[in-house]
Amino acid sequence: MFKENELVILIDPKNRTYLLKLKKGGRFSFHGGTIFHDEILKKKEGEIIQSSKGIELLIFRPTIAEYILKLKRKTTIIYPKDIAQIIFLGDIFSGAKVFEAGTGSGALTLALLQAVGKRGVVVSYEKRKEFLELAKSHIENYLKANKQKDFGKLVLKNKDIEKGVEEKNFDRVILDLPEPWKVLDQVEKILKPGGFFLSWLPTVLQVFKLVEEAKKRKFYLKGIYEFLERKWKKEGKSLRPEDRMVAHTGFLLIFRKIL
Amino acid sequence: MFKENELVILIDPKNRTYLLKLKKGGRFSFHGGTIFHDEILKKKEGEIIQSSKGIELLIFRPTIAEYILKLKRKTTIIYPKDIAQIIFLGDIFSGAKVFEAGTGSGALTLALLQAVGKRGVVVSYEKRKEFLELAKSHIENYLKANKQKDFGKLVLKNKDIEKGVEEKNFDRVILDLPEPWKVLDQVEKILKPGGFFLSWLPTVLQVFKLVEEAKKRKFYLKGIYEFLERKWKKEGKSLRPEDRMVAHTGFLLIFRKIL
Amino acid sequence: MFKENELVILIDPKNRTYLLKLKKGGRFSFHGGTIFHDEILKKKEGEIIQSSKGIELLIFRPTIAEYILKLKRKTTIIYPKDIAQIIFLGDIFSGAKVFEAGTGSGALTLALLQAVGKRGVVVSYEKRKEFLELAKSHIENYLKANKQKDFGKLVLKNKDIEKGVEEKNFDRVILDLPEPWKVLDQVEKILKPGGFFLSWLPTVLQVFKLVEEAKKRKFYLKGIYEFLERKWKKEGKSLRPEDRMVAHTGFLLIFRKIL
Amino acid sequence: MFKENELVILIDPKNRTYLLKLKKGGRFSFHGGTIFHDEILKKKEGEIIQSSKGIELLIFRPTIAEYILKLKRKTTIIYPKDIAQIIFLGDIFSGAKVFEAGTGSGALTLALLQAVGKRGVVVSYEKRKEFLELAKSHIENYLKANKQKDFGKLVLKNKDIEKGVEEKNFDRVILDLPEPWKVLDQVEKILKPGGFFLSWLPTVLQVFKLVEEAKKRKFYLKGIYEFLERKWKKEGKSLRPEDRMVAHTGFLLIFRKIL
Repeated sequence: MFKENELVILIDPKNRTYLLKLKKGGRFSFHGGTIFHDEILKKKEGEIIQSSKGIELLIFRPTIAEYILKLKRKTTIIYPKDIAQIIFLGDIFSGAKVFEAGTGSGALTLALLQAVGKRGVVVSYEKRKEFLELAKSHIENYLKANKQKDFGKLVLKNKDIEKGVEEKNFDRVILDLPEPWKVLDQVEKILKPGGFFLSWLPTVLQVFKLVEEAKKRKFYLKGIYEFLERKWKKEGKSLRPEDRMVAHTGFLLIFRKIL
Repeated sequence: MFKENELVILIDPKNRTYLLKLKKGGRFSFHGGTIFHDEILKKKEGEIIQSSKGIELLIFRPTIAEYILKLKRKTTIIYPKDIAQIIFLGDIFSGAKVFEAGTGSGALTLALLQAVGKRGVVVSYEKRKEFLELAKSHIENYLKANKQKDFGKLVLKNKDIEKGVEEKNFDRVILDLPEPWKVLDQVEKILKPGGFFLSWLPTVLQVFKLVEEAKKRKFYLKGIYEFLERKWKKEGKSLRPEDRMVAHTGFLLIFRKIL
Repeated sequence: MFKENELVILIDPKNRTYLLKLKKGGRFSFHGGTIFHDEILKKKEGEIIQSSKGIELLIFRPTIAEYILKLKRKTTIIYPKDIAQIIFLGDIFSGAKVFEAGTGSGALTLALLQAVGKRGVVVSYEKRKEFLELAKSHIENYLKANKQKDFGKLVLKNKDIEKGVEEKNFDRVILDLPEPWKVLDQVEKILKPGGFFLSWLPTVLQVFKLVEEAKKRKFYLKGIYEFLERKWKKEGKSLRPEDRMVAHTGFLLIFRKIL
Repeated sequence: MFKENELVILIDPKNRTYLLKLKKGGRFSFHGGTIFHDEILKKKEGEIIQSSKGIELLIFRPTIAEYILKLKRKTTIIYPKDIAQIIFLGDIFSGAKVFEAGTGSGALTLALLQAVGKRGVVVSYEKRKEFLELAKSHIENYLKANKQKDFGKLVLKNKDIEKGVEEKNFDRVILDLPEPWKVLDQVEKILKPGGFFLSWLPTVLQVFKLVEEAKKRKFYLKGIYEFLERKWKKEGKSLRPEDRMVAHTGFLLIFRKIL
């Protein structure tokens, strides 16, 4: 059964999803009527709840991929399809020490915390205080609601990476910054040899510039990638891709530090 | 410094990669000459080694994504770009209990073991004994070489899932089988409510069949996906995608168990 | 200068486009104000016109690709990116005799008429009378407005291809029908040996069925294709793909008739 | 029946294709044995011919798309999937006057000649004499072999567009040049108002540069495009995309001249 402060995702018959944080006495109203949190609190994951208008909704605990798409955002987030690749191609292993800048809305930070597991550490810099506060609450809400999962230790810092860093000997550095070439000194300082440096960039001139600057230094360029996800749908005898898709989010650059 | 039995990946100036398991007295010969393992054993990650013909190669520890592409394969493996999505969209969290069938070459199994971390468990069925043995040695080689990383508990079983299962209350089930619709009873038995069932299928008629069969049962279809990865290259002023790419590997189907 | 009954496309500063058929005394009102046709009639192609609210719009003659996207549609049309491939991969040459079914909104028909040129012929079957009427008026509007271009001879027939055909010795047959396997007899009758048979199908089970049926007959399968178009945008220093794209329209199958 | 100097494409059971120019007494040898041209000259399109080793091959007349992939090339050609879009999105209509530079191997030139039809004209500049000669023979071979098709009038000039042009009042200009921004004066001179200017560019910095330079002049940027083609294959019950595809050829930029 669900507990207070748990997060649930409700799915209606048209596959629309709604994220709720459960509160005793709480209520959720939508075009399909009203749902009382107290009713959900008596249910189990995978059960169905009926709205006041008789709409049936499935109740699940949200994954991080589902959760982050529902966050209040002050910036563009990195999409789940791209976070997946950052974690696997970037080898964010269980037990790793990971440095991130900037924190943004905390979407990637949360995914990193899950990937590094119990013994891992994620240090994240964000220079804009209001972003850091929002990210913190996003992350804490998910952590509190998911006691069955292990997460690494989180260190959020209200700092500007351009002004210097105190971290060193880290396994991975991930930058979601518009001008990463300005902080290559810091990246070299933070990373251990062989460590991964990942940069997420939306436009091609940024990619060009970063590769030019990084090759003057102790970095091996492992690859420049873009990722596309295409969803399919099946209705009766019709199986086909969906009509529209995301055409672009950004480019992932992966470097390794050399000695 | 590297130790005996560690795995290293060597990268030549044309970005070709070579995987070695370090042995005292070992030697590696390729078109660029010979390299002596004892020389590598004196180096650190991120250093350069010279072959007998003067070719310079970078030395790194391989990620799982790099390692599995070098494995001896008896079957097609699931590609890194797809493993990444299985782990993140399938919410293979730190601490999870994951069931897999079949083990195949062990590529996905190894990635799951890293994702579930210290407290997690991966049970994997494989009916062909010689595949299981090979997968086991692939996995053990990587685990022994990566003591700094945490991995879950591995249980390999030389069993055919079609003949029944003893597992239950698992968080996730992942099938890389040609006829997954034949084992939906078993999947329902293994999974806890709300748990994820992922199926990896290369052709569209398989996708059609599985969706048809699963909807007769207690499964919610979260989505059918295909993923594309496009690499880019930069040479001087030229920045452009590579000429060729992988056009297709398979389709990922994600279901959640309902009550 | 433009003449009455010519078609023009107006492009506003945000790249929105508006299609007009010029009439003396006509007026066009949109969120940006009003534009009088008489003003446009005094302009030349490539000139700018100001709306009553001071919005500046470029005036051009529309291409077929632009025109068909503005048509009143009773069915989905085949997209420009796909029409382009039908014409070139399907070798719709200047002087060809082309058979089409069904006419639909006439979008493909019009493109075929342009491709076959002065000496070519396009015969198009459509069983639904109201579709045929609409297609006819779409095509005639474009032909009348584009006297500087050559078009083939058009023969529209209000007939159901399933009930038989009288055509034979044609160079190409193009079917935009949901069950093309039902009319393979007719296709064989219409086509000369070596001729192309193209079928446009939105879903994969249709593709499977047609290939299965066609291989029992005198058809060589040249290929099954899908086509993707990705647009890019440049704003200041930012050059990147647009955020969203069309993920799927349909599959093109190309066969050649063998003896 | 085929005639001397006709082009044929032979297709073997594994879908490999061979282009021949028929000569009395000619012979073609390949891994599957020998085929005598005189035997083909007795056949009709769509018939089967047996090699000396008993391999059966289909005989067809090649389309331009098939023909150009078989040409001796001194440069990269523009691919059929891209030529298709140049012709349709670029509105290369029947009767059009088209200017091209440079001619290259003549692949695009030939496709343009077919698109403009009987009354159309294609003027093509190529500064390298040996390229021009090769292109000329490529084009003439196809024209002679395809009397049943209409082609426009071809004017090949051994000239460097950077040194000035005498053409004006053309409907379309298509540049396959590495630095098109150097000849924008010439493009403006050649094109009539409303006319299309298309540029084909392989790398992103070229795209950036051309858009920057063109917007300082009398050009409206209609769009920047890239096109992907994915082939599918069916074997028994298996229907799926092919394993690999072309990931990149180039970017198409389309402008229209404004007054």
